[in-house]
Amino acid sequence: MNIKSYMQALGSQAREASRIIAAADTALKNSALLAIAEALSHSREKLLAANAVDMQNGCANGLDAALLDRLELNPERIDAMIEGLQQVAKLPDPIGQVTDLQDRPSGIKLGKMRVPLGVVGIIYESRPNVTIDAASLCLKSGNATILRGGSEAIQSNQAIAACITQGLIEVGLPETVVQVINTTDRAAVGELITMTEFVDVIVPRGGKGLIERISADARVPVIKHLDGNCHVYIDDAADLEKALAIALNAKTHRYGVCNAMESLLVAQSIAAQILPKLAALYAEKGVELRGCEKTCAIIPGANAATEQDWYEEYLAPVLAIKVVDGLDQAIEHINKYSSQHTESIVTENTAQAERFMREVDSSSVMHNASTRFADGFEYGLGAEIGISTDKIHARGPVGLEGLTSQKWVVYGNGQIRQ
Amino acid sequence: MNIKSYMQALGSQAREASRIIAAADTALKNSALLAIAEALSHSREKLLAANAVDMQNGCANGLDAALLDRLELNPERIDAMIEGLQQVAKLPDPIGQVTDLQDRPSGIKLGKMRVPLGVVGIIYESRPNVTIDAASLCLKSGNATILRGGSEAIQSNQAIAACITQGLIEVGLPETVVQVINTTDRAAVGELITMTEFVDVIVPRGGKGLIERISADARVPVIKHLDGNCHVYIDDAADLEKALAIALNAKTHRYGVCNAMESLLVAQSIAAQILPKLAALYAEKGVELRGCEKTCAIIPGANAATEQDWYEEYLAPVLAIKVVDGLDQAIEHINKYSSQHTESIVTENTAQAERFMREVDSSSVMHNASTRFADGFEYGLGAEIGISTDKIHARGPVGLEGLTSQKWVVYGNGQIRQ
Repeated sequence: MNIKSYMQALGSQAREASRIIAAADTALKNSALLAIAEALSHSREKLLAANAVDMQNGCANGLDAALLDRLELNPERIDAMIEGLQQVAKLPDPIGQVTDLQDRPSGIKLGKMRVPLGVVGIIYESRPNVTIDAASLCLKSGNATILRGGSEAIQSNQAIAACITQGLIEVGLPETVVQVINTTDRAAVGELITMTEFVDVIVPRGGKGLIERISADARVPVIKHLDGNCHVYIDDAADLEKALAIALNAKTHRYGVCNAMESLLVAQSIAAQILPKLAALYAEKGVELRGCEKTCAIIPGANAATEQDWYEEYLAPVLAIKVVDGLDQAIEHINKYSSQHTESIVTENTAQAERFMREVDSSSVMHNASTRFADGFEYGLGAEIGISTDKIHARGPVGLEGLTSQKWVVYGNGQIRQ
Repeated sequence: MNIKSYMQALGSQAREASRIIAAADTALKNSALLAIAEALSHSREKLLAANAVDMQNGCANGLDAALLDRLELNPERIDAMIEGLQQVAKLPDPIGQVTDLQDRPSGIKLGKMRVPLGVVGIIYESRPNVTIDAASLCLKSGNATILRGGSEAIQSNQAIAACITQGLIEVGLPETVVQVINTTDRAAVGELITMTEFVDVIVPRGGKGLIERISADARVPVIKHLDGNCHVYIDDAADLEKALAIALNAKTHRYGVCNAMESLLVAQSIAAQILPKLAALYAEKGVELRGCEKTCAIIPGANAATEQDWYEEYLAPVLAIKVVDGLDQAIEHINKYSSQHTESIVTENTAQAERFMREVDSSSVMHNASTRFADGFEYGLGAEIGISTDKIHARGPVGLEGLTSQKWVVYGNGQIRQ
């Protein structure tokens, strides 16, 4: 198989299909989603059999337990995919909405119409359910999609792809609206991320390493989700009860998520009062503390933090703690070390909160709330294709709207330029 | 001079300055704009003297008349730069606006705050007034800027840069908010477009060649303005008076602009009726017509169009004309050949117009209006940094808002994730 011509064919078919799915109405897109759900439901045995092959190969290739867990399909996970499709069908359709209408002095009426991006390329790792997640969000937002899953999940992904194809055909849409790459050859990724004539945006879903590799080689724009080194700053005007609750929740609610707090900043004037209480709470949860000099002086059990700790996304029961002079130093520290994902200030002083909200340059900034709220579902997006740490296009949790763009629409009555 | 370390220093200073200008209030930014205008006004002789050197070198280097015209500064052009600064000072400040506020079931209040992109790199060709245009829009939108003008305008640009520096210092802003690269070494561009840690977006202003070169090598996202191969489609349900007026205006109002019509599509059923009238109007203006077979049969004076003509941005009194079966073929032709800039349909049939508006995939789509309206000023943006033919981030005319992004803001009262 010649990878280049295979990918060019996929790209050209996707571009053609993108015109059709862009013009499809909401009812047709929803019936496609439900037909795919139906196809999954009728293919349970095939899906489990295909997945069993992947699992067997994974074991033979020495994949670790965490990877095998992500790779596994079981009846509950198939149910979850079906439910996901039904939920996306219920989401409002963003496409075609015209907003910001205004009459211009020239007599034309001007507005903006929400439109699909066109062709979206999704590159992801072991979890086969991403095939359905990503395909359903792209389909609902009127985009054609080219999906490239992990090589360890190839059998599962091909079985899921067959269900998607069946659903699309049943409702009369071209099967090329969603295409799953059927080779594990890495050269296919290289083609996908450089076919600027056929692909409008790449959304990688996976670890920082994958995303950095893709961004380095891509010529197509990439919606990046790098790491989440999130901060909570406990201000000198903080309510101590709120501060304790938020600092505990942001760190310990879940460890392996990108919106967990990784560094805690505490204002000098209240450090001696709050840090011992926090240390006791973290000790109960088994969280390792790594502190600056002042922190270590207050918390005897804390280890000394190194410069690298301030950059770290632990994704584990480890927390870096720094005592800062006050708001200025907190903002400075965050803008230097954070990954611009999510940061929160705990304070009763509104002016200080407003400065923090404005001057901290991250995709989500919060006042008196846990960083754990930075999430597409908590934000009401209904679903999430990722969390962008970029500034261009989409920032923070990306839902259907992040897969769309706006074009200008002009309604005239024969107007010409004078 | 070591270009890499020079550019790294510029980048790092710009990143630092971007924090300060992002937090600056509207009054401070406006007073900086007016102080720069004042400095220009007091430096007229220096500006003209510096420009005279560039003009002399340009002549010696054999620049053509059009390039020399673009390079020239004269008292009127200095007045226009001053007026431009005053106008940008009057524009509403987009930064800090919080919109889309909503209460979430968790008790948090969620919104979006408009924020600067950070550091904007501008790369442009001969016209020195772009230095002021670009600097003023970036400053007003709270961004730090690194500017790289054409080598032929280096003396003029350095003289303008001195005025910008003076204005910034006068109002107490760091001079590093706007930095003009002071070397003509091409390696500086290579650094600028790859310093992802210091530069958030690149806006190239110039010909398609420049923009393609930059896009091919950039690692920083680029807001691209490629070409404008704009279409007018005269539908079978067109009002003939409107069609004649729009087709004439879109082609002949100005030839060298990106929103001029380059291809005209005419529905088969009215071609014989309208094309002779149009041919007479174009003949009066000296426009060369290149037609498909059917067009040439109706207009004896038309030359035969080649496949390449359908792709062409003439920027000249030349027009390609194609007779199409109807709406479907018109949309298909446009989506294949157009540069996705601006297209217009002339029709009295609302359903046909709606299909055209929705299915044509261009940054501006129009109904019964001349393509010449696709312009930042006509759209009420107040000023324009360029017209984007991208789909990601900004599409169509880009004003202040295109130089901004939105971050999520969360207002809580101690909420934690359950």
